[in-house]
Amino acid sequence: MELHPTPLNLTPYKAALPVAADCGNQIMRWSDELARHTEVEDMLTRTYLTPAHHSAAAQLAEWMCAAGMQVRRDMAGNVIGRYEADTADAPALVTGSHFDSVRNGGKYDGNLGILLPIACVQQWHNAGKRFPFALEVIGFAEEEGVRFKATLLGSRAAAGTFDMAVLDNRDDDGHTMREVMAASGFHAVGLAKAAYPPKSVLAFVEVHIEQGPVLLNAELPVGVVTAISGASRFMVEIHGLAGHAGTVPMEMRRDAAMAAAEIGLFIERRCQGKPGLVGTVGMLNVPNGAANVVPGRALFSIDIRAGDDAVRHAAVADVLAEIDTIAQRRNVSINARKTHDAMSVPCAPWLQQQLATAISSSNLPVRHLPSGAGHDAMAMAAITDVAMLFVRCGNGGISHHPDETMTAADAALAAQVFTHFVEQFRK
Amino acid sequence: MELHPTPLNLTPYKAALPVAADCGNQIMRWSDELARHTEVEDMLTRTYLTPAHHSAAAQLAEWMCAAGMQVRRDMAGNVIGRYEADTADAPALVTGSHFDSVRNGGKYDGNLGILLPIACVQQWHNAGKRFPFALEVIGFAEEEGVRFKATLLGSRAAAGTFDMAVLDNRDDDGHTMREVMAASGFHAVGLAKAAYPPKSVLAFVEVHIEQGPVLLNAELPVGVVTAISGASRFMVEIHGLAGHAGTVPMEMRRDAAMAAAEIGLFIERRCQGKPGLVGTVGMLNVPNGAANVVPGRALFSIDIRAGDDAVRHAAVADVLAEIDTIAQRRNVSINARKTHDAMSVPCAPWLQQQLATAISSSNLPVRHLPSGAGHDAMAMAAITDVAMLFVRCGNGGISHHPDETMTAADAALAAQVFTHFVEQFRK
Repeated sequence: MELHPTPLNLTPYKAALPVAADCGNQIMRWSDELARHTEVEDMLTRTYLTPAHHSAAAQLAEWMCAAGMQVRRDMAGNVIGRYEADTADAPALVTGSHFDSVRNGGKYDGNLGILLPIACVQQWHNAGKRFPFALEVIGFAEEEGVRFKATLLGSRAAAGTFDMAVLDNRDDDGHTMREVMAASGFHAVGLAKAAYPPKSVLAFVEVHIEQGPVLLNAELPVGVVTAISGASRFMVEIHGLAGHAGTVPMEMRRDAAMAAAEIGLFIERRCQGKPGLVGTVGMLNVPNGAANVVPGRALFSIDIRAGDDAVRHAAVADVLAEIDTIAQRRNVSINARKTHDAMSVPCAPWLQQQLATAISSSNLPVRHLPSGAGHDAMAMAAITDVAMLFVRCGNGGISHHPDETMTAADAALAAQVFTHFVEQFRK
Repeated sequence: MELHPTPLNLTPYKAALPVAADCGNQIMRWSDELARHTEVEDMLTRTYLTPAHHSAAAQLAEWMCAAGMQVRRDMAGNVIGRYEADTADAPALVTGSHFDSVRNGGKYDGNLGILLPIACVQQWHNAGKRFPFALEVIGFAEEEGVRFKATLLGSRAAAGTFDMAVLDNRDDDGHTMREVMAASGFHAVGLAKAAYPPKSVLAFVEVHIEQGPVLLNAELPVGVVTAISGASRFMVEIHGLAGHAGTVPMEMRRDAAMAAAEIGLFIERRCQGKPGLVGTVGMLNVPNGAANVVPGRALFSIDIRAGDDAVRHAAVADVLAEIDTIAQRRNVSINARKTHDAMSVPCAPWLQQQLATAISSSNLPVRHLPSGAGHDAMAMAAITDVAMLFVRCGNGGISHHPDETMTAADAALAAQVFTHFVEQFRK
């Protein structure tokens, strides 16, 4: 009971833009709130077209509307908010990211790139400010590939590059994507119509948490992505000869695990000291290994990425050549099966330049860095020039994990940079 | 129906010893027959005090009796056949090996060391030949340690070094060894009485398939064991930092798998070129590894063995020092837990010499080699001098596997050598 309430100042809030701190807090609050839309209690798991996914979409739509946007959903389930230009039917600067998640993921991955622009639009809407271009904010319905083992479904639909064969992919319950879409009120036929018409898009700019430690180590809140790395992935199986750990002399061994170890360390050495090039053995296993048995078999994965495709291809060629050398020297058979190969997607220099200018205008140093992870911008590059603004990731850069974190201050700075970028945007 | 049977030659078989070829074929036939006593169809699995184990014991007892031996079982379930000396109560030259098996094991591992002496005794029995010492052939009931996770149970009982605490170990069904023994008619109290009385044993000599490729590569049917290698075993766990395979630059990684790989290759290098020294990483695993995740955790085993304990200890010390160096350089934490440490057991030079003489008398070169695997002779060394005769293992030296094999010709040669050894045995 308030007997003597302090008189409220009812004057509408109309401070000059950017109101960065407010935006930062708003983004953090929304991130927390959106994270409640999850399939599994006490963690964030939100896969394509589940009830949690639908309710998150509805929540995004509500916030977009409140920020002054017209909201529509396309037949992939993407949630698209349009903030009209100062003239009708103007082409749009498009931004956005995904609102699905990995299992037990972080709350900023993807979501930040939707919530941050909504917060900025709300400021412009409050201020009555419009631009000579429309601004569209897309919440892509699917990027991570968890439910149907195919990635970038939302952005591929928006870019008109959706692979209709994926509609027959099944989730763990055996339902096809086609069935699940129909049950959710979406229809495959409409997918083709989800694509942006030519010339309706000026550019696509995605804000995303870095998901790595580069900005954190450089003590910078934001950075400009140069390219989304291309990636080559292999599953490797080595067959040597199992033997008794006590009875087979070292020089008679055909040890599959030591061959794998040697290949792993070669990959590490080969990728070291080459900016933007990374190589990883993420899976490594001696099936049914026992302490007293020389491994006859080893399985491992190779993942090699680089912003520059030539750099990546050279590394892959060297690794495959070394695998042959090691196989011969150790008298083991090695089968390296390519499971994935994606070209790098360069970010448009003119968009990078405008992002850099926006960063400079906030008195921050400009750091360029490649994105080793894939993002929706990769798919959008099929129809327009793309760019990405990375935001510093806390906790050592951990992502795809509940420990993923970022600060309200960084959210505020990123919103300030994004605001400047949009306000100064020229094509 | 045989209308005109060929008249049988009923004259007892009394050829001069050694009748090597006959012995060889007999040993191979018995090996096949004994292998039918298995818990699992179509493979050989015979663990301590199972029905298959009991029926194998009964079969051994039958063959021992038929070969002219008195047969008894001690309270560990060992099957002991005694071929009396030409005088009463003479001390015994003891031989034998184990008749339990690993899961899906080979049919010569252990069994050969029981069947070969029985075949030789049968020849002496047929020829009416006795020695100034008794010959005892033991089928040790347990060596492999499969059912109760403790090894050498039979020979430790015979040597009086049985650890009574093991009686409380449980099998996979939750039964203690004590309960299982009681249900089989054996009793823990009697275990102490299973031990050979002092001075009743002249020596213990074990015949065993090599379980490795040394004799095979040297093209020799038999070899003299110099020592049963001592062994040090560790389980190692590495904690680094998991990260995104695309976003964490090489120089910022704390990759647990690459630390494991480096340690493994160091072990391999450290043990190479040192005769009798072997080092193995038999288990190696990145738990929950994924192709796109830098490993934050790795688990592996280390097994280091040598006939010479000083050689082994020096290798272990170098490996542990290198683990520290790698942990510091890679900024990962490494915990190496020692799980096993056994001193080497040297074979008595005078017994090695008599085995060598027996081999030479068969016009074979004498090859000395350490045993990297553990054997019942290790336990018997607590009460008497021990020696071992290794027999060539086919198929690249594979053992503990259904592909384990040896030839009838090698069995015959080994029987000839064993026969000569016993006939010329002097202490």
